Amino acid sequence: MQNVSYSVAVVGATGAVGQQMLKTLEERDFPIGQLKLLSSKRSAGTKITFKGEEYTVEEATPDSFEGVQVALFSAGGSVSKKLAPEAVKRGAIVVDNTSAYRMDPEVPLVVPEVNEADLKEHKGIIANPNCSTIQMVVALEPLREKYGLKKVVVSTYQAVSGAGLEAIEEMKQQTTAILNGEEVKAEVLPCSGDKKHYQIAFNAVPQIDLFQENGYTFEEMKMINETKKIMHMEQLEVAATCVRLPVETGHSESVYIETDKGGASVTEIKELLASSPGVTLQDDPDNQIYPMASTAVGKNDVFVGRIRRDLDRDNGYHMWIVSDNLLKGAAWNSVQIAESLIKLNLLG
Amino acid sequence: MQNVSYSVAVVGATGAVGQQMLKTLEERDFPIGQLKLLSSKRSAGTKITFKGEEYTVEEATPDSFEGVQVALFSAGGSVSKKLAPEAVKRGAIVVDNTSAYRMDPEVPLVVPEVNEADLKEHKGIIANPNCSTIQMVVALEPLREKYGLKKVVVSTYQAVSGAGLEAIEEMKQQTTAILNGEEVKAEVLPCSGDKKHYQIAFNAVPQIDLFQENGYTFEEMKMINETKKIMHMEQLEVAATCVRLPVETGHSESVYIETDKGGASVTEIKELLASSPGVTLQDDPDNQIYPMASTAVGKNDVFVGRIRRDLDRDNGYHMWIVSDNLLKGAAWNSVQIAESLIKLNLLG
Repeated sequence: MQNVSYSVAVVGATGAVGQQMLKTLEERDFPIGQLKLLSSKRSAGTKITFKGEEYTVEEATPDSFEGVQVALFSAGGSVSKKLAPEAVKRGAIVVDNTSAYRMDPEVPLVVPEVNEADLKEHKGIIANPNCSTIQMVVALEPLREKYGLKKVVVSTYQAVSGAGLEAIEEMKQQTTAILNGEEVKAEVLPCSGDKKHYQIAFNAVPQIDLFQENGYTFEEMKMINETKKIMHMEQLEVAATCVRLPVETGHSESVYIETDKGGASVTEIKELLASSPGVTLQDDPDNQIYPMASTAVGKNDVFVGRIRRDLDRDNGYHMWIVSDNLLKGAAWNSVQIAESLIKLNLLG
Repeated sequence: MQNVSYSVAVVGATGAVGQQMLKTLEERDFPIGQLKLLSSKRSAGTKITFKGEEYTVEEATPDSFEGVQVALFSAGGSVSKKLAPEAVKRGAIVVDNTSAYRMDPEVPLVVPEVNEADLKEHKGIIANPNCSTIQMVVALEPLREKYGLKKVVVSTYQAVSGAGLEAIEEMKQQTTAILNGEEVKAEVLPCSGDKKHYQIAFNAVPQIDLFQENGYTFEEMKMINETKKIMHMEQLEVAATCVRLPVETGHSESVYIETDKGGASVTEIKELLASSPGVTLQDDPDNQIYPMASTAVGKNDVFVGRIRRDLDRDNGYHMWIVSDNLLKGAAWNSVQIAESLIKLNLLG
C-alpha cells in the first residue's frame, strides 16, 4: 500500500473544538502531509504544538486554502459561510462543524456510524451535525434498524464547553464567586448573541441558542431536523428540550423512544447496543454502572445506560446517553468523516 | 372568630427540611400555641430560635407527643415508621414527609392544590409526597381537569439539598477541590445507603435513591406511583428518569404529556396555568423568561414555562417545571396540609 498523506487545514484552531481536533488528529495518527492552522485575525499569531512541532496560527483568508485537501471548519457559522465555498473552489473538501450548511439539501450531514454512504454525494462541503444530535443518533440507529423508530422525546443535560472557552471561564468564575459569597456576573450564557444573560453556576438553564417562532430554541430545532436528515426519516417524530448545566464537558440525554415493533426485552436491547459501532454499553444497575459526564469526558465513544422498558407502552423505552461533546459531538466526528473520506477513496 | 392556636411538634428540626419547616411556620404565622422541636439523640440539645424565642431540641420519644396536635415529621423513614404511630396513639395528627406511609392505602397522600379533600379520610397519618412529584402534579392538575391526561414522561434535574445537608456540603467541597485541582472525595451521593459514591460537582448523575428490580430507581417509582395516587388515576401512564445535578436547591423537570383531548393552543394552556392555584407562569421566550432553579429558590410557588406543542402529536405538549424542593417540595406543602386541616375543621 502506498504511503499517502494529505494536506489538512484546521479553521478555528484556537477554539475549544479546534484544540480537540488537533488532539484527535494527533491521537489517530491521521496521515497529514501538510498542516495549516487558521483562525480569525484576533487569534492569528498564536503558537500551537502539534506532534512536537510548533505551528503559528495564520489568519484564514480565501488563499489560505490553496493546496489544501481537507479543511476542518469550527470557527462559527459566519466564517464557514464566507470561507467554505472559497476552500471548495480551491479544491478542498470541507468538513464543517457549524450549523451553516447542515440543512442544505446539497450538503450531506454525516455521522459515520449512521450514514457514512451519504459522503459519496458530497459536492465539496460535508456538514458535521450538532453535538447533541450526534450522540443520540449513534445510540438510536441500531434500534431503528432492528425495530423501526416512531417517536423520540429527548431532554438534554448539556455542558458549557459546547458554548466555547468563554462559557467555561464564566462558569468557573461564577462558581468561585458563589462559594466566596460574592456577586455573580453573567455575560456569556445562555447564548452570547441574546439580550439577557443568566447564572449557570449551580443552576439549570432551559435555553441553548436563540428562540424560534414556534417556542422551541434553535438548538432544539437542530436536534429535531438533523436527526430526521441523518436517519433519512422525514416522518420520524422528534421533540427536544435542551438544557444547559454547570458541567464543563460531557452532554447527557434522557431519551424516550417508541419503536414500530414493540416487545423487545431490555436484555435484547442491551445486547444489540453492546455490539453496535461507536457505542459502549454501561448498564448494570445492581453495581451502579451507568454513563456520566465525568467518566465519558476524553473518550470517543457514545455511552448508553439506564435502559428500561416503558411501564405502559409495549413499544416504549427509556435510556440515558452520554458523550464527550467536544469529541464525538464535534472533533472526533469531524476527523472520523475525514477518515471515512479516505476509506471511501473520496479524498484527492 | 375564636383565637385558636395549636400544639405543634417538628420532628427532624435540625435537618435541611426541618429548618425550612420552622421558617415556613414563622412566615405563615401559623397559629402555634406550644412548639416542640424534636430530633435524633445525636442532634438533641441544639438551640434553635423561632420567632425570637430560643428552643432546645429534644430527643424524639413516644412520650414527646403527649399533648401534641400536629406533628410534622421529616427525620427519615425509619423514625416515622417507629414514632408516627406513637404520636397518633397520643392524639396527634402526623404530617409525614418521608416515603414510609405514602403508598399505604389507609394514608392520604396530599397536595392541597390537587386533592385537599382526601384529608377528610385520614386516620391519623397524612403523607407528604416526594418533592419531584409535588411540583409536577401542581402543574398537571389543571391540564388533567380541562383536557384529561393520558401519558406523562418526565426527566428531572434535581438539586442536592433533596439529599440533605451532608449532600450540600459534599457538593461544595468537591467543587472547591476541582477548582483547586485537588482530588475529589465522594462519600454521600448519589445515595448514602448505596455501595458506590460518585462525584456530583460539575456532573449529572442518573441515580436518585436505590435501584429497583425493574431497572427504575426508587425515586422514579415514587414519582410514578405517587402521581397516580394523588391524581386518583391508576390508569395514568407515567414514566420518570431522575437525575441529580450540582444545584444546591430547586428541582427542574422537563415534562412531556399527552392529553385525552388534543388541539389546545399554547396560549390557552398558558392562560389556564396562569390562573391555577400554586402556579406562577414564567413563559415569554421573546424576553427569555422561563423558570430556573436560581430564581425559584426561596419561593413557595411552582413555576412553569417553555410550554410548547409537540410538533407531531396533536395531544402532545412539552413544558419545564421548577420549584424549591425544600419548600413546595417539602416544608411548605407540609405546613399547607396543616393549614388545610384547620380550614377543613379537622384539627383538634
